[in-house]
Amino acid sequence: MYRLALLRHGQSTWNHENRFTGWTDVDLTELGRQEAETAARLFQEEGFTFDVCFTSVLKRAVRTLWIVQDALDLLWLPVHKTWRLNERHYGALQGLNKAEMTAKYGEAQVFEWRRSFEVTPPALELDDPRHPRYDRRYGETPTEDLPATESLKLTIDRVLPYWHANLAPEIRTGRRILVCAHGNSLRGLVKFLDNISEQEISNLNIPTGIPLIYELDQDLRPLRSYYLGDQNAVNASIQAVADQAKTKA
Amino acid sequence: MYRLALLRHGQSTWNHENRFTGWTDVDLTELGRQEAETAARLFQEEGFTFDVCFTSVLKRAVRTLWIVQDALDLLWLPVHKTWRLNERHYGALQGLNKAEMTAKYGEAQVFEWRRSFEVTPPALELDDPRHPRYDRRYGETPTEDLPATESLKLTIDRVLPYWHANLAPEIRTGRRILVCAHGNSLRGLVKFLDNISEQEISNLNIPTGIPLIYELDQDLRPLRSYYLGDQNAVNASIQAVADQAKTKA
Repeated sequence: MYRLALLRHGQSTWNHENRFTGWTDVDLTELGRQEAETAARLFQEEGFTFDVCFTSVLKRAVRTLWIVQDALDLLWLPVHKTWRLNERHYGALQGLNKAEMTAKYGEAQVFEWRRSFEVTPPALELDDPRHPRYDRRYGETPTEDLPATESLKLTIDRVLPYWHANLAPEIRTGRRILVCAHGNSLRGLVKFLDNISEQEISNLNIPTGIPLIYELDQDLRPLRSYYLGDQNAVNASIQAVADQAKTKA
Repeated sequence: MYRLALLRHGQSTWNHENRFTGWTDVDLTELGRQEAETAARLFQEEGFTFDVCFTSVLKRAVRTLWIVQDALDLLWLPVHKTWRLNERHYGALQGLNKAEMTAKYGEAQVFEWRRSFEVTPPALELDDPRHPRYDRRYGETPTEDLPATESLKLTIDRVLPYWHANLAPEIRTGRRILVCAHGNSLRGLVKFLDNISEQEISNLNIPTGIPLIYELDQDLRPLRSYYLGDQNAVNASIQAVADQAKTKA
């Protein structure tokens, strides 16, 4: 049996201000750091440890991982960082808050961008300084792979190749892996593992800062999955994420 | 022209207690963290940035790198960790302080272990719990590669293959690299780059927390090397490292 741990980063400064973040590289808030500490404590209490870690190239995920590594005394672990685990790219919505978006596009349209599977928000123009082509962390990524906006579908479409090429082979070696990432990149993994439909996946809310554990058979099919820690706290956190989404949209 | 940055980690808890540390995984002291902050500030003031980083699997080096990455807002950088950049393995001396060593082995013997190029301290026994074979961070390293003691020569002998196989090819791609490591693994790189003799290398003291920059030609031969920052501070730091060595031996 294999075991895989997924962890969604906690509150960032823009979550806190209720702005669409996407690929904007904002940091964790103090609460976000505490959420990472709590996740580390849950790993410790349940006797989890790791052999290799994966994260995005966004600092709210990397810092979450650092906090977990530090608490578990695992600074030496190999860590792979990839844009394929980044949050969904929200295109021209990035940086806007609820009031600004509603004023610009109307509530129904914003709700559709957030909750439909295939609809993409307006793309960043090629000459927009926020376009990933101007960020040197993507300098070695082929330009045609770099999104200027993404639907949830497109996000999942670029996460899954990384699962097949990098995560799955690593799990099959027997190494215990931790993936520290974002709401929508983790949705991609969960959709694939649990074979969730396109209709349902948008309604699946992964709580922040609570480790999600998959036990997998030899073909990497889930035998069981569960959140670590007190299940009332887990449910409250799932509800909080769902409520935040409602407020935003 | 290529440019390479080397950084030696700052004070650790055992430096502070004047104990031989070697591969023991002790953390930075508060002063050690401040030294890393100072190094980061020097990089910033001189307009340095990086594309990829290399460090050991010992937390005093990894944490130094994390502090630099954080200050430069480069959490996304790829980082490669390897035991080949670890500090020299001090064998059975690890954990002893000056008084304990002198009582056990005599001052002349300890001086020889510290300052000769080829003499190794007593090795850890195979069943000593401090032997690296019992530390899972070395679990994927062939057992025959794992030292139970090292002379400076043996340290350099395992650092240089990493230079040739990993660091040099990376530099040749044009990527700007930062190596964050230890007094003796960095001595190995400096000995090779500057073609320093076996007699002289033991007297070369690399200061902690002060970036050492090499400018290299297309064959990776040094055109010039220098420490960042105020040269009086650099000299004082080199002297402090030399004095600490004298006190220890």
